[in-house]
Amino acid sequence: MNTALAELKQRLAEIDDLQRALSVLNWDARTMMPPRGAAGRAEAAATLAGLVHERFVDDEIGRLIDRAAPLADELDYDSDDASLIRVTRRDWEKERRVPSEIAANLAREAGNAHVAWLEAREANDFAAFLPALQRVTAVALRWAECMEPGDSPYDAFLDEYEPGMKTAEVKAVFDVLRPELTKIVRESGEPADNSFLEGDYSIATQQEFNAGILRDFGFEEGAYRLDPTVHPFATSFGRTDIRMTTRYRDDFLGSIWPTMHEAGHGLTYQGTDPSLARSPLYGNASLGLGESQSRTWENLVGRSLPFWRGRLPELQRLFPQLEPIDLDTWYRGINRVAPGLIRVESDEVTYSLHIILRFELEQELVSGTLAPADLPEAWAAKMQELLGVEVPDDRRGVLQDVHWTRASYGYFPTYALGNVLSVQIWRAVEEELPDLDAQLEAGEFRPLYESLQRRLYRHGAKFTPMETLERAIGASEIDPQPYLAYLREKVAGLRPA
Amino acid sequence: MNTALAELKQRLAEIDDLQRALSVLNWDARTMMPPRGAAGRAEAAATLAGLVHERFVDDEIGRLIDRAAPLADELDYDSDDASLIRVTRRDWEKERRVPSEIAANLAREAGNAHVAWLEAREANDFAAFLPALQRVTAVALRWAECMEPGDSPYDAFLDEYEPGMKTAEVKAVFDVLRPELTKIVRESGEPADNSFLEGDYSIATQQEFNAGILRDFGFEEGAYRLDPTVHPFATSFGRTDIRMTTRYRDDFLGSIWPTMHEAGHGLTYQGTDPSLARSPLYGNASLGLGESQSRTWENLVGRSLPFWRGRLPELQRLFPQLEPIDLDTWYRGINRVAPGLIRVESDEVTYSLHIILRFELEQELVSGTLAPADLPEAWAAKMQELLGVEVPDDRRGVLQDVHWTRASYGYFPTYALGNVLSVQIWRAVEEELPDLDAQLEAGEFRPLYESLQRRLYRHGAKFTPMETLERAIGASEIDPQPYLAYLREKVAGLRPA
Repeated sequence: MNTALAELKQRLAEIDDLQRALSVLNWDARTMMPPRGAAGRAEAAATLAGLVHERFVDDEIGRLIDRAAPLADELDYDSDDASLIRVTRRDWEKERRVPSEIAANLAREAGNAHVAWLEAREANDFAAFLPALQRVTAVALRWAECMEPGDSPYDAFLDEYEPGMKTAEVKAVFDVLRPELTKIVRESGEPADNSFLEGDYSIATQQEFNAGILRDFGFEEGAYRLDPTVHPFATSFGRTDIRMTTRYRDDFLGSIWPTMHEAGHGLTYQGTDPSLARSPLYGNASLGLGESQSRTWENLVGRSLPFWRGRLPELQRLFPQLEPIDLDTWYRGINRVAPGLIRVESDEVTYSLHIILRFELEQELVSGTLAPADLPEAWAAKMQELLGVEVPDDRRGVLQDVHWTRASYGYFPTYALGNVLSVQIWRAVEEELPDLDAQLEAGEFRPLYESLQRRLYRHGAKFTPMETLERAIGASEIDPQPYLAYLREKVAGLRPA
Repeated sequence: MNTALAELKQRLAEIDDLQRALSVLNWDARTMMPPRGAAGRAEAAATLAGLVHERFVDDEIGRLIDRAAPLADELDYDSDDASLIRVTRRDWEKERRVPSEIAANLAREAGNAHVAWLEAREANDFAAFLPALQRVTAVALRWAECMEPGDSPYDAFLDEYEPGMKTAEVKAVFDVLRPELTKIVRESGEPADNSFLEGDYSIATQQEFNAGILRDFGFEEGAYRLDPTVHPFATSFGRTDIRMTTRYRDDFLGSIWPTMHEAGHGLTYQGTDPSLARSPLYGNASLGLGESQSRTWENLVGRSLPFWRGRLPELQRLFPQLEPIDLDTWYRGINRVAPGLIRVESDEVTYSLHIILRFELEQELVSGTLAPADLPEAWAAKMQELLGVEVPDDRRGVLQDVHWTRASYGYFPTYALGNVLSVQIWRAVEEELPDLDAQLEAGEFRPLYESLQRRLYRHGAKFTPMETLERAIGASEIDPQPYLAYLREKVAGLRPA
């Protein structure tokens, strides 16, 4: 075996160990840590993150990549080893571009902006967040200047989440979505009744139902957890230690879909080829591809008629107050389309419009055509234009999301790309599995999981997003049409008979 | 400010960050981790532990200590800075003595022995554990050879847990305890009835009671957690992130005392001077001193008559089945003295005899006068001699504890030293607080905590155990007499009137 490759792998494995340790710290901070542990935790996490960075940008990693490169040329492009060398070179060259002073500044200003944002949101006062937003954005733009010459700053931001993807490609997709989605929303008619989701819904019983869902989706016993948090998320410390969270309220049956959403992320981790463990290739190729799978299990499975035809009786047994609700009423209720103020509460149709709004504002912010001080006004205008709703205050407007506190421009679009990709991939699975609907109704998720695992999950982060899509379904472009067709058909099916 | 000292502090702070990250990994592994996460976690923990070691034994740490040493000579011996330089030199010189090959071997053989022990215990078969025990002991003896010349191997082991203490000092204490404790046990008469602890005891209600205890003991809000585990323990990632665990069964009211025990450890962490945060001086001076405080809150408080005079009514409200149990019956039941097989289930009087047994066997093992193969027989003989009980099998005999899987010889004695020290320190507090009994009855624990905090907890690991005891109560020796007097008086008070 090539000794340079062996040594490179050993170094990357140890870096991955430290990265996973950092992930445990972050999971704990968000699920278990007593609030007053935050300051000490921030110090430990910063030291560990600094060490991960320092070890990765080491000159020796570059030398080992160079020494292993001839081997990569001989190997099959798709082999684990060739992929490891290729992806490591890409990431190493990128991370080396950023002077540590800028990285440290960015981390510090993001920390400050997060504190300012929490206070500003509480006080419902964008002006209190503005100075911190300006500072973190300024540092982020300096960071972007370090990136690939020829790329726009927004390209640089986007590349963090969708390696190799350009702003123009996203814009092309969104330019198709924008008019069509607003049209579908307009034509969706009177929002269905979903008031039955409010009431007395014991958290313990919701937990029991969710546990059954995760088991049936195909999680391996003794290899995952589901915990309560305010903001649901999923992470993983290896394919047999997957951590998901969801949000519970005892007066609202709302934990099911966040659970299925995070389960979708979890399944991509579980499905990653075991040979990629303890390497930078473990995980997802991009945020958009990851999100396509959370959306698949949340929406394409979890808001589908076949799924609930099979599952509603169990839910009614657990919550007898749902017995009077028939399948049709239930299905229309949980798929209620109604323009609203809050992204994370929005439905399948309006969701991507919330994203397009942010994508457009971000580009203006980054290019300097929109001053940060004018954000609330621009936000309100676009909400009116895209969703036809009035923004009453900053809290329910521009201050609702955490992402800009880290100047994570380019992150939001991946959510909508995930929606689009989810249907594109689903169509291929449907062709492969003619009995898919019957399987969903019967609670047999194994064929679906195995198809997605074989097409997508097993590849981890070996390829670029588009290379991965090519291997998953033979397509090399993001195509918004299947997603639009799916939404049109779905909305048509929601109208009262 | 001295730049060498400043740089030393910065390096030690970062090492402490990594050490705390490792502690988070270990806490998670014991409380939250899905079982199949173990292999991946072991890799991450090993890498992190290796890094902590590597950074600490760095030549540069030694140079910084040397450069800072003249300052230490000028400063007050008790100052934080002088203590940091002194303790760091001691630990650095000690850790440098061990070749990394031996440290790695020890870690690997301990891992193997742990697996072998789990299987052997399950199979109730000491012979299945023997080869692994022999191997880990052999490596541990090589480790001991690297330590201070002139010390016996057992001195070297003991020094890991009681810095600076010698085997002869422990032996002197245990030689006094041995005959007196066996005499007290013999004279304790018929064991009291404690069958009321068995029954229907909802875990949720036990948790409610325990939460009240922790609050009243003086834990600061938002700065600690209590979780369920099989083997209770306490750890801390800083004085405002303290993690304790206890053991629950819904058919046994057994979680209260482990909770108070771990709370005792937790209070020492909370009480450490904030100036020692993020340094190697945060924590306890020794295992024995730490254990003295877990025993204080578990036994001297939690099995005392004044405490339960105040608290039993609340417990009876939570568990109405206890209403027929009067204070006297309760007190005698929870202090039941009865020789038994299992250390962790033993009472206040017999506990130290279980320790003396292990201390004596360990010394023979380490000096080579007892062959590991003969351990079960020697164990049975000593159990008969010290406690008068017959050992029916290995599981309830020599295989009951985990400590020897790591060849942690010298660890067990610290438990009995903790018992002895707890009463020695308690006597000083009693003199200071004439109303202590009334305070315990009223649930006012603040004066007790503040006295212990001022005497002991605030010092963290600044001093050797004996220097710490000197500062806490003005004594410079471990004196077993107060402990024996306490037990004699207690046992006398337990006899039916």
